[in-house]
Amino acid sequence: MKGFASDNYAGIHPEVLAAVAEANDGTHARAYGADPWTARAEQLFRRHFGPQATSYVMFNGTGANVTAMRACCRPWEGVVCAETAHVNVDEGGAPERMGGLKLLTTPTTDGKLTPEHIARTAIRVGDEHAVQARVVTITQSTELGTLYTVPELRALAEAAHERGLVLHVDGARIANAAAALGLPFAAFTTEVGVDLVTFGATKNGALGAEAVVFLTPGLDEGFLYLRKQSMQLASKGRFLAAQLIALLDGDLWLRSAQTANAAAARLAAGVRGLPGVRVTQAVEANAVFAILPPGVAESVMEQYPFYVWDEHTGEVRWMCSWDTTPDEVDGFVAALTAAVTVAAGS
Amino acid sequence: MKGFASDNYAGIHPEVLAAVAEANDGTHARAYGADPWTARAEQLFRRHFGPQATSYVMFNGTGANVTAMRACCRPWEGVVCAETAHVNVDEGGAPERMGGLKLLTTPTTDGKLTPEHIARTAIRVGDEHAVQARVVTITQSTELGTLYTVPELRALAEAAHERGLVLHVDGARIANAAAALGLPFAAFTTEVGVDLVTFGATKNGALGAEAVVFLTPGLDEGFLYLRKQSMQLASKGRFLAAQLIALLDGDLWLRSAQTANAAAARLAAGVRGLPGVRVTQAVEANAVFAILPPGVAESVMEQYPFYVWDEHTGEVRWMCSWDTTPDEVDGFVAALTAAVTVAAGS
Amino acid sequence: MKGFASDNYAGIHPEVLAAVAEANDGTHARAYGADPWTARAEQLFRRHFGPQATSYVMFNGTGANVTAMRACCRPWEGVVCAETAHVNVDEGGAPERMGGLKLLTTPTTDGKLTPEHIARTAIRVGDEHAVQARVVTITQSTELGTLYTVPELRALAEAAHERGLVLHVDGARIANAAAALGLPFAAFTTEVGVDLVTFGATKNGALGAEAVVFLTPGLDEGFLYLRKQSMQLASKGRFLAAQLIALLDGDLWLRSAQTANAAAARLAAGVRGLPGVRVTQAVEANAVFAILPPGVAESVMEQYPFYVWDEHTGEVRWMCSWDTTPDEVDGFVAALTAAVTVAAGS
Amino acid sequence: MKGFASDNYAGIHPEVLAAVAEANDGTHARAYGADPWTARAEQLFRRHFGPQATSYVMFNGTGANVTAMRACCRPWEGVVCAETAHVNVDEGGAPERMGGLKLLTTPTTDGKLTPEHIARTAIRVGDEHAVQARVVTITQSTELGTLYTVPELRALAEAAHERGLVLHVDGARIANAAAALGLPFAAFTTEVGVDLVTFGATKNGALGAEAVVFLTPGLDEGFLYLRKQSMQLASKGRFLAAQLIALLDGDLWLRSAQTANAAAARLAAGVRGLPGVRVTQAVEANAVFAILPPGVAESVMEQYPFYVWDEHTGEVRWMCSWDTTPDEVDGFVAALTAAVTVAAGS
Repeated sequence: MKGFASDNYAGIHPEVLAAVAEANDGTHARAYGADPWTARAEQLFRRHFGPQATSYVMFNGTGANVTAMRACCRPWEGVVCAETAHVNVDEGGAPERMGGLKLLTTPTTDGKLTPEHIARTAIRVGDEHAVQARVVTITQSTELGTLYTVPELRALAEAAHERGLVLHVDGARIANAAAALGLPFAAFTTEVGVDLVTFGATKNGALGAEAVVFLTPGLDEGFLYLRKQSMQLASKGRFLAAQLIALLDGDLWLRSAQTANAAAARLAAGVRGLPGVRVTQAVEANAVFAILPPGVAESVMEQYPFYVWDEHTGEVRWMCSWDTTPDEVDGFVAALTAAVTVAAGS
Repeated sequence: MKGFASDNYAGIHPEVLAAVAEANDGTHARAYGADPWTARAEQLFRRHFGPQATSYVMFNGTGANVTAMRACCRPWEGVVCAETAHVNVDEGGAPERMGGLKLLTTPTTDGKLTPEHIARTAIRVGDEHAVQARVVTITQSTELGTLYTVPELRALAEAAHERGLVLHVDGARIANAAAALGLPFAAFTTEVGVDLVTFGATKNGALGAEAVVFLTPGLDEGFLYLRKQSMQLASKGRFLAAQLIALLDGDLWLRSAQTANAAAARLAAGVRGLPGVRVTQAVEANAVFAILPPGVAESVMEQYPFYVWDEHTGEVRWMCSWDTTPDEVDGFVAALTAAVTVAAGS
Repeated sequence: MKGFASDNYAGIHPEVLAAVAEANDGTHARAYGADPWTARAEQLFRRHFGPQATSYVMFNGTGANVTAMRACCRPWEGVVCAETAHVNVDEGGAPERMGGLKLLTTPTTDGKLTPEHIARTAIRVGDEHAVQARVVTITQSTELGTLYTVPELRALAEAAHERGLVLHVDGARIANAAAALGLPFAAFTTEVGVDLVTFGATKNGALGAEAVVFLTPGLDEGFLYLRKQSMQLASKGRFLAAQLIALLDGDLWLRSAQTANAAAARLAAGVRGLPGVRVTQAVEANAVFAILPPGVAESVMEQYPFYVWDEHTGEVRWMCSWDTTPDEVDGFVAALTAAVTVAAGS
Repeated sequence: MKGFASDNYAGIHPEVLAAVAEANDGTHARAYGADPWTARAEQLFRRHFGPQATSYVMFNGTGANVTAMRACCRPWEGVVCAETAHVNVDEGGAPERMGGLKLLTTPTTDGKLTPEHIARTAIRVGDEHAVQARVVTITQSTELGTLYTVPELRALAEAAHERGLVLHVDGARIANAAAALGLPFAAFTTEVGVDLVTFGATKNGALGAEAVVFLTPGLDEGFLYLRKQSMQLASKGRFLAAQLIALLDGDLWLRSAQTANAAAARLAAGVRGLPGVRVTQAVEANAVFAILPPGVAESVMEQYPFYVWDEHTGEVRWMCSWDTTPDEVDGFVAALTAAVTVAAGS
């Protein structure tokens, strides 16, 4: 079974698994991240994000996002985000219940925040009745498969900083963004003013590992305590670090992301001409969103699993992974083409 | 480097790693635990704990313990535990801050609760000013390396149940307990009235996987939501499940635990006669606690890392692992013997 | 100084203060609500809301709202509300940080929810990644001075109940609503299917007292514990209860509300014809919202304090109180008229 | 009915009620504490605690204590306290669930902490697995009716400060302490190094008002937000402030406390000689703790309500109030004497 449901349906990249096996060298290693593999991963984050970057390995994206936001906010401070943000709609209320964080949401058309959104949302400064905005969180690439450009990011960072806010990037698919932008990580994070990043490795080919990377010195004060308290501290940390090393030491992160992005582009190209099919978002990373003629989704889903994204409009989401092949895309396009033809004829 | 600092300094048992590799079969699998490996792990938990057992894979022990306790408590309910319980002293305040849980602690001499402890702690029933006891949590084997016997467990379950409380077992080392008791898991959990268990696999040879196993039907209502919200839901769940399968399908869990327990027994036997060395707790699983002559700990620690357990008394803790060999124990005993001799002569 | 800034700028109604003084009878009374005054207040709530009503005295509206919602929600459940709801914008993040509650907000034009809003917001049932809707909270009269009619309330209750949700009314100004509807409390709460109410007394003439009134039996399980834990349990409870008795035993609640409502109607009538003044919401209770010509608000505010409601549009809010006199309204209208004339001439 | 159950069974001191009535002057006042009465109360706190004191009016003691501790602690920090502390046993788990605070408790014999307790409890500094001590909270006078002397307080403040901790005083009965010590408030708080105080007025004769008083500049950063979020911000704040003014402007706080303390001393003297009666704690403020012959408590309780303090030992607690008269004490002593005689004869 391989489909287009989610980029976390894919397995572990063989090079990642090999790195885990290699870290299992028969000796003991200090637990809880005090091991050489973790030190090496931290070094690699500094290489990719700049010498001031401090990084903390985490289990998963929800844990990384929530703990990152906890690190920035005092109890009366909250988080500006798009209504479609993963932290708002797909984290089971963890920001609110586990973090106590109020999300100050704003509607967008493409999942992307603008400085105007910040201006309209980060209001009532000094009013004790209102949660005070402290973090702006964006997702890169977004939940809708779109991408922030470097100038857009720079403008967001400026809008955040001039209000005393910090800019957080939920980078569950940050490698896909880097590949799509054709830029090293630092060029669209550190160098444009991003303050901290949730670095996603799982969708990029890991077994299960993410990291919170702080780019602004001092922001990570007490984060060791917060990570432990947030139940995100792995005891055998070397095996999470080894996954990150496998991706970041060479160009595996890039190869994986390029494969996924290319598959999405191929898929979008393949369906764009089909009658009644409308691609609803710019295809800029590894996701394709579309509205299909009635009945088409249901008839193709069984063979190629994917999700309906919007209960109200019927919009579907197709995700491509590090292991999606051109042949699989072509097979999927063929199946969609056949179903569209049937639907048109009925 | 191999030492006696912690049973999570050890690596992954090769059979566990092989199972992870086997689960990485090149196909896609549904994320978030809706995969065949997870179903298989759930089946194995039913085999080991009884047909009514429901199980949920988690990342780590803190996450499993806190989420298990959250599942049982309404906001005004709390948890009876020993002062030495891991949830009280080693989980970074996660029970309180992430779970909102008050721990109703009681001192013990050996890390073990008794019905009398419950009677003295689960008081003020119906008093709105006091947190109402709801969970009794015990650790098996305990943080002090001691073991609850079957009659002791039965008495605790009765004391809990007659007050309307549930009995939770923090089984970070439950395999060591089973091996030491010479009993299958159900015989000292399900069959004596335990209501839910944190099943620890990481110290037993896994890369990183634990589970919450509910033995009393209905207690797990909403637990899928709680796990997600508690940031403990792995996206590529098959790779956590595969580890549990590797341990539980055959007798790997038992072999690993027996090795560790035997090493602790050998170590205790080796040091018991040494002048000035006092073994302070019954050695019933894979831990040895001791008080050493001044200077001994420091001189041996560098070669064989271990921890001082009690800042005030200087008591040390030695943990044995699934990979501790008799030779390593003998080498450690020899080093201790030499250091004791030097200390005695000075 | 008397103005139109807020209905909590007014003082204590003399009859309320007299009741407090009367309760201070020189004897002792059991603390924490176990006193005869509290029993009497509970009886009055049953008279007004029906024999099944259970009531709990609270300090303030934020405490009452948050504790009421806490009583209904398990940790993975949340609250549907209008974006303009007080719980969303004016309670300092207490729902999220103190209650762990995610608010599932929806935009409205007049501060009122409809069944369609519920249908669009209470979605993703059974999806572990999404907070599950459990409460629909509405404000009656709303934060925008508008009113739910009985048929509207009935439709909301039906929409909530058919999804297994409960309907909560934030009744910070419920007396104003009753007066405006010309109905007893039960007629637009209990009898239309409302499940629980935050009963506001402070704006109605009390010193400081509110209550949570449960209309659906069983919903208040454990609420005594929750109130204490939510730091809302008064030790000398008789003096809060006495305030509620003063309002509810006779018709003081109605007289106070009618005075305020009449003042708002008079004010709206007085400004409606003024050039450049636009009343922006239906004036159905004791609030008037308006957009004024530039400069007018600033020039009148000093003498008659009031608030700008919307930073973006300049919309202002005028609140009338139980002590607002027709003369004061007329004086305010005269001042606005003069300022508008000046503005028009400049 | 007047008894010895609790000092919050008493009513409002007439001078306090008169002050509330006077503040109800027929005009409007800004809500939420932005009124002249609150400014005046703040001024009085500066008079009593020193010019650097900042104060915040709160509804009740639990709210004041929890919000005070929240103000001091980052998420990974906790609170050292005696096992008998009100925050530990009588606040319904509010510190843990509402504040996320772990209490690091220590047993005491008389409810009083010593520097040794701090040294034994504020341990594991820098260990990410352990909550880091940040606050030492003591109660003055204590829950057991005992008193900290000035040298004892100074030693505690030193022990706290040399570890980077702050010293908080739960002053639910701070007026009783001041009266007993014969000292102004500042002399045993500000001047000995206390960092913040929960100032209790309710038991001292108020209707219901407390305050958090910060003595160390800077500690109160963001406290306006915290108070609102903690659901402790009164809308008609002037009527809480008026109560504090009534107590603090003249010597009403002192007269009330002296009356209560004298009554306790008279009561202790009256029962000390009775056969089988043992006064168990030093009687230093307005509480008397005693163990009575079997049956005595039950037979007297009906006429003079009081509480059994310790379910296990049968120890009882007698509290005297600002309104306890010598005659009432004498009547109570006579009743106890009669009951003891009956018990001795049986």
